[in-house]
Amino acid sequence: LATNDIAAIAMVFHPLGTTETLEQLERLNTIDRALAYRTLPKDRAVEVFERLDASLQADLVAGLQEKDVSEVFAELSPDDRVALLDELPASVANRLILGLDERQRALTSTVLGYPQGAVGRYMSPEFVITHPEMSVGETLERVRAQLDDAESVYTIMVTDAGRCLKGVVSLRDLMRAEPVERVQDIMKKPISVEATSDVEEAARYCADAKVLVLPIVDAEDRLVGILTVDDALQVLEDAESEDAARSGGTEPLRRPYLATPVRSIVRARVVWLLVLALGATLTVQVIGAFEATLEAQVVLSLFIPLLIGTGGNTGNQAATTITRALALGDVRPRDVFKVFVREVRVGALLGLLLGTLGFVIAGLAFEVSIGLVIGLTLLGVCTMAASIGGLMPLLGKAVRADPAVFSNPFISTFVDAAGLIIYFLIATSVLGL
Amino acid sequence: LATNDIAAIAMVFHPLGTTETLEQLERLNTIDRALAYRTLPKDRAVEVFERLDASLQADLVAGLQEKDVSEVFAELSPDDRVALLDELPASVANRLILGLDERQRALTSTVLGYPQGAVGRYMSPEFVITHPEMSVGETLERVRAQLDDAESVYTIMVTDAGRCLKGVVSLRDLMRAEPVERVQDIMKKPISVEATSDVEEAARYCADAKVLVLPIVDAEDRLVGILTVDDALQVLEDAESEDAARSGGTEPLRRPYLATPVRSIVRARVVWLLVLALGATLTVQVIGAFEATLEAQVVLSLFIPLLIGTGGNTGNQAATTITRALALGDVRPRDVFKVFVREVRVGALLGLLLGTLGFVIAGLAFEVSIGLVIGLTLLGVCTMAASIGGLMPLLGKAVRADPAVFSNPFISTFVDAAGLIIYFLIATSVLGL
Repeated sequence: LATNDIAAIAMVFHPLGTTETLEQLERLNTIDRALAYRTLPKDRAVEVFERLDASLQADLVAGLQEKDVSEVFAELSPDDRVALLDELPASVANRLILGLDERQRALTSTVLGYPQGAVGRYMSPEFVITHPEMSVGETLERVRAQLDDAESVYTIMVTDAGRCLKGVVSLRDLMRAEPVERVQDIMKKPISVEATSDVEEAARYCADAKVLVLPIVDAEDRLVGILTVDDALQVLEDAESEDAARSGGTEPLRRPYLATPVRSIVRARVVWLLVLALGATLTVQVIGAFEATLEAQVVLSLFIPLLIGTGGNTGNQAATTITRALALGDVRPRDVFKVFVREVRVGALLGLLLGTLGFVIAGLAFEVSIGLVIGLTLLGVCTMAASIGGLMPLLGKAVRADPAVFSNPFISTFVDAAGLIIYFLIATSVLGL
Repeated sequence: LATNDIAAIAMVFHPLGTTETLEQLERLNTIDRALAYRTLPKDRAVEVFERLDASLQADLVAGLQEKDVSEVFAELSPDDRVALLDELPASVANRLILGLDERQRALTSTVLGYPQGAVGRYMSPEFVITHPEMSVGETLERVRAQLDDAESVYTIMVTDAGRCLKGVVSLRDLMRAEPVERVQDIMKKPISVEATSDVEEAARYCADAKVLVLPIVDAEDRLVGILTVDDALQVLEDAESEDAARSGGTEPLRRPYLATPVRSIVRARVVWLLVLALGATLTVQVIGAFEATLEAQVVLSLFIPLLIGTGGNTGNQAATTITRALALGDVRPRDVFKVFVREVRVGALLGLLLGTLGFVIAGLAFEVSIGLVIGLTLLGVCTMAASIGGLMPLLGKAVRADPAVFSNPFISTFVDAAGLIIYFLIATSVLGL
């Protein structure tokens, strides 16, 4: 963009709401985005900055004046601040922390104290507290006093003198009650999560429980923060982008597609592609071992992609289903035997259907013996692929790897190679080679 | 479960909270689930029923007494009621609607009036309304009067006399303001969505805007309902299960894995598998056309799975990335040219890397000419696969198909067949066959 275009950009962005501005910014490259951002009016700029991905915030920081950066940084909530800090060079990060007032610095440190991937990193340490023996009227006063600061005022935490979580009470229930009633008579039993727990599990728990706020406690059940539903949504969205990417055999981009440089896209894909290609050299060796069989019956090579493809598809179907079921908590690692039995049955049924069809079609198009080879191979490959595909995500989870990362290369190497062996063994025995 | 086990079940379920009860119920088969559900104490039973998937609710209805069903049905909110009605046989559905009181019947009809997949089906018609010229104090009175009924009391809708949406005001801002202030001075510009819009897009919009409540309007901008963030979350979770399933080549199960009968799992997978296998017969024909080449050089068959696999992986990577970018709104169908150019560049770079490696390894393991064939094929296949894989989801979206449904079979048939043609053409010209 030329300098004299800046006025034009300002014109484009001026009438847009915050959400539309965000959408447009996420479609620009780093330099254009910084230029466009600087044309935004001050209050809009802060709103937009708060809602950008941390990676894009970090890009912007480089293109802004030190003073402007400190100002927006101070406006961020402690959890968003920590997400941005993770993306910035250490020197910049330290300077920004030192620029905060004492209270905000303390709040930020609390959040920074938890390891990456723990829900403590995503929680807000600003919430409203009341006590069981307090009255509804007093509690409402506390809510009013913290209308400006608290991350959420719609769910109030009830703790004892030792900060242990005893219950939660909604603003709706407080408004419904008489001012003299005691909090303990209207509070609900809390569900909570430990600050060191995995953030994705915590977010899923928040979503499943359909609560606006999930209390976060330490190992002694003392309240340390809250996870709000909008932060939980963001976490789940990122987790799902990651799962989608990895089951498609690529690393997640962490930035909107059009805002990601081509070399970053290549980097996100190349390792996976290499691992999968190296794994596939196993198939080269398997076919090499049966080269004599192929020389005797070149027609067998015609079906290699179809048989391998069907095996891969069956394996992927099972792996996809189980990976998703694990993410949703519908299946747990200790269900491994149940899953195996189900997938063997599913695979055998699918193999029977496809095998019968393969037998008929290949038998008609070539000869009956070829049809028999294809039919039997499909039966064997489907059963093997579904059971292996269903087990892999569970095995991955058991060794604490991402189920998708673990299953994908394994399926496309092991299932392919095993499928070829099944094929050639059936072929040699049926055709008497 | 034997009849005398019912006491035992009751013992197991008794100490569990609602969330844990749900988790356990979702792991049982239909009959055990109905038995276990009937052991729950009444108030817990209603809470649990409300939060079950509509498909599991429908299963339960069959196992419950008519009276019990009418009672829980009346407790459901109108949008949840409609989701359950969709799963029930028409006769049961009609009986249940007739059992409602007049007001609830009217509210349910409003929601039922929208087509499936429209956000109107998922909205709640029970919300708090105020007007721009009303005072803050009067508005708070209205909130208090509707504490029991309204789906959300934390975001209040501001409409004019013709029910047109003029703004939204949060309960937090109302509490912060003086009672005599006018709503128009503290209300915010609303973002809203039309009731006929796609529910997934509306839910994504609600999530991106980080609002607790998204107003739903008709074509004349009159307020007809609200979508709450927890309903939006549920919609997004279902949409993501669907996307995950379809990019893995299977239909979503719509029930938790362990609660799905084996025959339903087979049904969810078999059509896909057949389509993909039939598509793969294209590869049989391509190889058949080059059978003479293969007979002359059987060694070429060794690399078929590796080359086809790499093409498929590259195509899947691109399709996965673009499908996700489309779902998140980062890429739109009109970006087709930008995406194509980027994917050609990404594919060519990946092909150059893998091709060089393939040339060296195959050149050393076999002979230089074979190395050259493999290297050039990898370059060609990666470039082709990435660009095709990136375009398919956009094409799918343009013809209003699910991008994942559209891309998957196309990639694994077209990319495989095209890859084989590239391979054999390069092989015949390099090896002079």
